[in-house]
Amino acid sequence: MAAPHPLSALSIEETNLARDVVRAAHPGTVLFFRQNYLWEPPKADVLRFLELEHSRQLTPSSPRPARCAQVFYDVIGGQAKAQYNEAVVDLNLRTVVDHKVIGTEHQSSLTTKEFEELVECVQASALFQQKVSELKLPEGFEVIVEPWPYGAPDIEDGDNRYFQALMFARDTRSGNPDSNFYAYPLPLIPVMDAATKTIVRIEEPATGGRGDSLTAKTHKPEIVDHCLESEYVPELLPGGVRKDLKPLTVVQPEGPSFSITDGNLLKWQKWRMRVTFNSREGAVVHDVRYDGRPVMYRLSISDMTVPYADPRPPYHRKQAFDFGDGGLGHCVNNLTLGCDCLGVIKYFDGVLINSSGDAEETKNVICLHEQDNGINWKHTNWRTGRAVVTRRRELVIQFIITLANYEYIFAFKFDQSAGINIEARATGIVSVVNIDQGKTSPWGNVVSPGALAQNHQHVFCIRVDPSIDGHENTVVQEESLPLRIDQRTNPKGNLYEVRHTPITTSAGLDAAPFNNRVFKIQNLNKINPITQRPVGYKIIPPPTQLLLADPNSRQAQRALFAKHHLWVTKYKDHEFFAGGRYTLQSKREVGGVSDAADRNEDVLNQDIVVWSVFGLTHNPRIEDWPVMPVEMLNLSITPTDFFTKNPALDVPSDKDLGSQLTAGASTNAGSSCCKL
Amino acid sequence: MAAPHPLSALSIEETNLARDVVRAAHPGTVLFFRQNYLWEPPKADVLRFLELEHSRQLTPSSPRPARCAQVFYDVIGGQAKAQYNEAVVDLNLRTVVDHKVIGTEHQSSLTTKEFEELVECVQASALFQQKVSELKLPEGFEVIVEPWPYGAPDIEDGDNRYFQALMFARDTRSGNPDSNFYAYPLPLIPVMDAATKTIVRIEEPATGGRGDSLTAKTHKPEIVDHCLESEYVPELLPGGVRKDLKPLTVVQPEGPSFSITDGNLLKWQKWRMRVTFNSREGAVVHDVRYDGRPVMYRLSISDMTVPYADPRPPYHRKQAFDFGDGGLGHCVNNLTLGCDCLGVIKYFDGVLINSSGDAEETKNVICLHEQDNGINWKHTNWRTGRAVVTRRRELVIQFIITLANYEYIFAFKFDQSAGINIEARATGIVSVVNIDQGKTSPWGNVVSPGALAQNHQHVFCIRVDPSIDGHENTVVQEESLPLRIDQRTNPKGNLYEVRHTPITTSAGLDAAPFNNRVFKIQNLNKINPITQRPVGYKIIPPPTQLLLADPNSRQAQRALFAKHHLWVTKYKDHEFFAGGRYTLQSKREVGGVSDAADRNEDVLNQDIVVWSVFGLTHNPRIEDWPVMPVEMLNLSITPTDFFTKNPALDVPSDKDLGSQLTAGASTNAGSSCCKL
Repeated sequence: MAAPHPLSALSIEETNLARDVVRAAHPGTVLFFRQNYLWEPPKADVLRFLELEHSRQLTPSSPRPARCAQVFYDVIGGQAKAQYNEAVVDLNLRTVVDHKVIGTEHQSSLTTKEFEELVECVQASALFQQKVSELKLPEGFEVIVEPWPYGAPDIEDGDNRYFQALMFARDTRSGNPDSNFYAYPLPLIPVMDAATKTIVRIEEPATGGRGDSLTAKTHKPEIVDHCLESEYVPELLPGGVRKDLKPLTVVQPEGPSFSITDGNLLKWQKWRMRVTFNSREGAVVHDVRYDGRPVMYRLSISDMTVPYADPRPPYHRKQAFDFGDGGLGHCVNNLTLGCDCLGVIKYFDGVLINSSGDAEETKNVICLHEQDNGINWKHTNWRTGRAVVTRRRELVIQFIITLANYEYIFAFKFDQSAGINIEARATGIVSVVNIDQGKTSPWGNVVSPGALAQNHQHVFCIRVDPSIDGHENTVVQEESLPLRIDQRTNPKGNLYEVRHTPITTSAGLDAAPFNNRVFKIQNLNKINPITQRPVGYKIIPPPTQLLLADPNSRQAQRALFAKHHLWVTKYKDHEFFAGGRYTLQSKREVGGVSDAADRNEDVLNQDIVVWSVFGLTHNPRIEDWPVMPVEMLNLSITPTDFFTKNPALDVPSDKDLGSQLTAGASTNAGSSCCKL
Repeated sequence: MAAPHPLSALSIEETNLARDVVRAAHPGTVLFFRQNYLWEPPKADVLRFLELEHSRQLTPSSPRPARCAQVFYDVIGGQAKAQYNEAVVDLNLRTVVDHKVIGTEHQSSLTTKEFEELVECVQASALFQQKVSELKLPEGFEVIVEPWPYGAPDIEDGDNRYFQALMFARDTRSGNPDSNFYAYPLPLIPVMDAATKTIVRIEEPATGGRGDSLTAKTHKPEIVDHCLESEYVPELLPGGVRKDLKPLTVVQPEGPSFSITDGNLLKWQKWRMRVTFNSREGAVVHDVRYDGRPVMYRLSISDMTVPYADPRPPYHRKQAFDFGDGGLGHCVNNLTLGCDCLGVIKYFDGVLINSSGDAEETKNVICLHEQDNGINWKHTNWRTGRAVVTRRRELVIQFIITLANYEYIFAFKFDQSAGINIEARATGIVSVVNIDQGKTSPWGNVVSPGALAQNHQHVFCIRVDPSIDGHENTVVQEESLPLRIDQRTNPKGNLYEVRHTPITTSAGLDAAPFNNRVFKIQNLNKINPITQRPVGYKIIPPPTQLLLADPNSRQAQRALFAKHHLWVTKYKDHEFFAGGRYTLQSKREVGGVSDAADRNEDVLNQDIVVWSVFGLTHNPRIEDWPVMPVEMLNLSITPTDFFTKNPALDVPSDKDLGSQLTAGASTNAGSSCCKL
């Protein structure tokens, strides 16, 4: 069998081999495995390989980067606390080539196994049983334990590893296991010490509203009597589903326009790239080229943070890093044909591991499809009446994650004009806590009786590792700025200045939409023959609100990446994570993009990385309940003076022959959109 | 035949009747007709009618608003200059009920007939012939006259009515009438006096670049020898069209989910509205209701301005108001099945007039269809593995206009979550002027040899006349603002303030995305029973750059609406146009939204109008040439605490059975997206 491509994910065999090598390195000890996925080779090694690959000089004897796995695991027994280890395993040498024991100042990413332990631990807790018994739950209600990361720790928490659980009650009387328990929040938050597997305390947040103190206990024992059912599964909807929606189907009689070869090599018209999946980042896109020219070395969702703004203890701790805390691998949805996307779909499977380290194939973690997005370009010559119009076809690489109550849908979209869009959609069930009957709150919105949806933010960071016609790139800020009337240079006052400012030192930068600020990633060594400007791609930073928490707060300290809209740093191998390598229960962002920028490195005509930060301040509306319609965010990356004309000019303007007129209307002839 | 609905456009018969009544009012004189369309009845009269209609109390004897047409025309002969008149004709009384002669300080909107006269006038001009002969055009090239409005006039132009033409050369050797002449710009701009139909002068703009003066004449007689062909019609593309795009078809076997009755009454699931077309605004949406509750009284594209930033005379005059200058009726595209939209399409026809006042039916001026826009909401219960996912179906009301070189695509989109999106797409051919060989310019980008695409802006204004559960509405500004750590109120620093500020007096307001500033249109008299907040809809003003021209410039003075992102004014009958009633060659915005706001009227709990202004600063990239891929702008209007839950909760989660796996992969069973 041929050696795997250096940018392909580990196979089941490779994953299990890495496990065996690690086990062998720890004879007679129990290991608890957390993550195991490709250790991407140093970029220099990959580039050497890609040069051979793209120049068709690759032979079986060509030098290849070492094929390595990175394995994260605990060594249990011996010492009081489990000891967190990280190893790099060379799969050809079958040996550990790098090994670190991580200090207790960092927490390893969590696993679903730990969440299961938390649930068992809570249920077994006498203290918890007693607290629940003090509440008067209605007949037929059961208690639900919702595991959460501990979030933003307090100083007194030290280096202890904690988990917390949010509590809800579920009305079992429908007999439907999917009846929505979030409608019945309970003001109990058990905290487990992961080392001792004991509930160290149960916090009892206040349930008051406007004017009440942050801590006053005002709830009645009949804690959910004022709550109301809020179902979303169709069979439980009081009125059932609407009947007046007719089917709309996407048909591709000749199949898709893309091909997949060599396992993960995706070709679509003039685009070519490799798609991988790993347990930390989900879908990653590598070696993106258009018409043979390199555009991106790597595109990924680096991290995100979701801080909550309710000041009442312990809600200040509610702050998830949905990629970093657990590695989202185990949160990835298995996608379903005709539901998560339409048309002709290609699914990719992923490899994850269990806590014994055994590889497990997970089906349909990424879906790939084409979609139509309206008109791409059109012009009508009014002299001749001739109209030429082309559709906008997009290629979509999508994955979806579920984190307890909430869902995110991420898509890398490529279009025929050589543009790239990275879309994030937020949906799922907003996080609610109990609020006393009849009260309202400055900290959120009452979306259902007794259920307060707390104000919060979602801040995302997309990591863009560009290769604009090569790997020496420069970010140039462009602004359009007003000018005053000047008899010599601007006699009528209609001129504005387009100002270009190259970014020379690694830094965090901000959006400025009222200056039309855009950032061009340019290759200063390649000049467009017609415009005489450097070839480039333009990033328009979404002008969204940044993190609101006080800069001195724990929430802000552990998400320094959320201080700026766009970071430019010098490329460094394995520097992938904006919020740092260890976000779970972190006290401060360490080794994230903020530290990378603080190296103050030269980023002029260098191998650089661009980090785009954008977000959503989510003050819930009742229309977000019980499951919210998607909120959409989009990062646009488009060519500017990279080509010598509109790259979509040669898209055929064929008419969609499947389209029809509404009944009664007469059809019109011809199969071209070039109307004569 | 039943009386037409008060919110229906004039029929051909009504249009011709209005013409006849106006003719009869001017015996023995020649009339030149410009526009003739529905004079919308005063809102008070319409509301009385709608109340009867929606309460099903309408009878043939019910009182109806007067049915009137507004007719714009010149009276020719007699006086030296044609005299511009506006009349309102009562179609039942068959009489002119209002008549105004418009003063010469205002220019009437232009018509295509005047453009035809301009072309003839230029071609017949000896001066023009001589100027052309001084240029050495290659064998086989012909001269093309591109009519333009005069734009921003200079003081010395007084009240004279002028038109200008941009000049290009067309290579006729291909024999193809659609070969792209824009690739060969000529530095000649003839100016015609519309009263005398004579070319009063021919301006010769400079063709220099960076470092050259604004006026230096540096071009050679061989003016287009350094230009290159830039074709876009498929048969002229050197390489032909790409062959690797497979068909993607939208099929609706059971037809669309919408219905059209009573000519223009559109029903789609829980939405209900009326759609009309007129020669000034294009598609207009009236009386928008969701589930029987009023949401919008009227939605329209009010106006837009496109100022160019090249300071060289006479380019400072290049500033179009694409709705106001001509009434875009004659610029509207006749849409084509399967090209301008996919699926099952309903087309609406429109009624326009010729300069004799005769009604002319124009086919397919608006298209109506449904589209899929990905996932609308999803939640997976990780305990049971049960996923419920619904698609996002949208209803699209679209129209497209062509203005010489350029195209705009406008769409009113309604979704199943009771949201409204108004989308503008810009495409077509960017405006270019001649530039000397080898030069670059601070005023634009060389997109083709010899062709400089000038920097410019597009600023749009959407008029939103809300009726949120009634006609007494209030705009409330909401901002999310940081708070410092405070031991009593914000001990951990995670709290942020959500501040609400009602707008009490008519005014222009601005976007502030870094404060997460949104504007809620609320009905303070209707309180949501669960959230205890006023019912409302939220407008997120697109945070785009406003007009850049010097506030004292002519460009800025005639587009005062472009000073702010959001205007709130008190409703006034027939106050529809943000840039004023008379934008053609205007010296200053008169009677536009700025004047309306300056009335300083009470807008607290009143019948109000909200005007959303957003735009695109367009510094062209070569990828915009020769026809640019769409730039998309979107205005989002979504319910906030208007309902008592997600309005799309009852959308069925049926699987699209037309979807397929790529060849080789195995399908998965079931017809529901509720995965078990």
